[in-house]
Amino acid sequence: MSPEQILLLLLDLLGTFAFALNGALTAVRHVRIDIIGVLTLGMITALGGGILRDIMIDDLPPATFQDWRYLAVAAFGAFIVFIFAKHLGRMTVPIEVLDAVGLSVFAVTGASKALEFGLGPVQAVILGTLTGVGGGTIRDALVGRIPSVMSEGLYAIPAMVGAGLTVAAMMTDLYGIAAAVIAASTCWLIRIIGIRFKLNAPQPLGTFRRVGTQD
Amino acid sequence: MSPEQILLLLLDLLGTFAFALNGALTAVRHVRIDIIGVLTLGMITALGGGILRDIMIDDLPPATFQDWRYLAVAAFGAFIVFIFAKHLGRMTVPIEVLDAVGLSVFAVTGASKALEFGLGPVQAVILGTLTGVGGGTIRDALVGRIPSVMSEGLYAIPAMVGAGLTVAAMMTDLYGIAAAVIAASTCWLIRIIGIRFKLNAPQPLGTFRRVGTQD
Amino acid sequence: MSPEQILLLLLDLLGTFAFALNGALTAVRHVRIDIIGVLTLGMITALGGGILRDIMIDDLPPATFQDWRYLAVAAFGAFIVFIFAKHLGRMTVPIEVLDAVGLSVFAVTGASKALEFGLGPVQAVILGTLTGVGGGTIRDALVGRIPSVMSEGLYAIPAMVGAGLTVAAMMTDLYGIAAAVIAASTCWLIRIIGIRFKLNAPQPLGTFRRVGTQD
Repeated sequence: MSPEQILLLLLDLLGTFAFALNGALTAVRHVRIDIIGVLTLGMITALGGGILRDIMIDDLPPATFQDWRYLAVAAFGAFIVFIFAKHLGRMTVPIEVLDAVGLSVFAVTGASKALEFGLGPVQAVILGTLTGVGGGTIRDALVGRIPSVMSEGLYAIPAMVGAGLTVAAMMTDLYGIAAAVIAASTCWLIRIIGIRFKLNAPQPLGTFRRVGTQD
Repeated sequence: MSPEQILLLLLDLLGTFAFALNGALTAVRHVRIDIIGVLTLGMITALGGGILRDIMIDDLPPATFQDWRYLAVAAFGAFIVFIFAKHLGRMTVPIEVLDAVGLSVFAVTGASKALEFGLGPVQAVILGTLTGVGGGTIRDALVGRIPSVMSEGLYAIPAMVGAGLTVAAMMTDLYGIAAAVIAASTCWLIRIIGIRFKLNAPQPLGTFRRVGTQD
Repeated sequence: MSPEQILLLLLDLLGTFAFALNGALTAVRHVRIDIIGVLTLGMITALGGGILRDIMIDDLPPATFQDWRYLAVAAFGAFIVFIFAKHLGRMTVPIEVLDAVGLSVFAVTGASKALEFGLGPVQAVILGTLTGVGGGTIRDALVGRIPSVMSEGLYAIPAMVGAGLTVAAMMTDLYGIAAAVIAASTCWLIRIIGIRFKLNAPQPLGTFRRVGTQD
């Protein structure tokens, strides 16, 4: 492996770890679950987006089932939550920063994989975004929350920007480690700015008639 | 393309548009979501059933990812809801009539595609019905509602009739544009009669013990 | 077919029946659904785990769509609930014993099929467990409950033991009808002991802040 590939692999594993940690932590905060629930929901958050992407592009079994390191890192992240949930609750900022790394890397690698598998540019942007947000969406559906990606903050939009830059670079033959890092950094920065200034995507007007089930 | 194929394509795109419109509208009425939620839930309602069918029959990537027109029409329908949600709320009747067109076309084309891909007749009826009702079911699961197809009105039953007529016509070599139109029209008519007279499918007796989370 | 294969097929169909019965019964107790909901949720509980496994190992269309007997047995089990739901509510013990048979057989056959399709041993244990618990998890997500496998009782753990014994036997070339029966019986026994003594998996400490939506 070249140094660039090693960097991407390390970032990918770091993102998987952060997603499992943040995913399991979100789950234990909202519902009463046991160790099976913590491990399952953490791993689904970390691996679910990539699994959905691999089903869509017909790369089965999914990549996360073929490389044991992803399973191990995801299980480890969720297990840390099981042990230290009480203390991790106070570490919101570093966990959100790490989670944004996961979102950025997944959006870039997801879009690039979709394009490599022959899908069109618009589809690759959609699937890159899905790689980043899909796992958390499945988790939210399982614990009975409105998916946060659909209701609050800026989460899908930075992922779309990162995936879009990736696709633009690949279509113009400019893709490489530098382009991947630029695309991921842009996504990460928008996400962090969104957290810092509590930005939200626009909402439709005058349609919501009763209190929903989300928080 | 023959005129018949063009007619079927136009009906299919019209159904996709109606499903996206109705799906996004149902979502914004029940939960507080932003533009990402409106677009995602509208597109999932419109495309989800076909994607589930294509996974089951092993036609991956799903057809809706290979033809950009479906993505564009679904996104457009959902976007209209984002802009005009307040006014669309008063247009229940025309939207339900259009939605019934989508259900009918999807049930017929879904069953016919499943049979073409070598599945048995019963499976083709199930998958035709799934094509019609699957997208709305995923949307309801994501917004925390009991899927309306499982709890109220006549929705799956007309789809099963439409899919059943399609399979019967194909098994007896009578399938063609005329049979497809008859099957879809029958489904559409049962659906409309069900809406007009507020018909429901029978419920099991004496089992329900507490108020659920549906409306 | 050899007598052993016939035994496994009969147990598999018995498990499918028990899952459909128990799955439909759980659904009608928690939410107001009609006959379509009873049949759909019963069949999803019975067949959903195997379908998820077959997607992951790339054996599409799923086995349950290729053998009509599974569809028929699952529909029959759910239909019995539609007719006799009121009376079945009193037969908790025999239904739970049968459901444990389903869990055990599905965990063993699921793990063995995953290994046969070339997945690694850890992945085969995960997919065997998924075969056992996946259908009920989809049902719970559709009716808006926290999946019971993630929150109460011992359900995934016996399945993991059964799948683990199966994988261990196959890796050491000891797998056969005797090993399958031992693995399934061990799973079944742990599940029954868990029910009898109301055992739960450990929960994380001090993290849960509000009443969730589960019972």
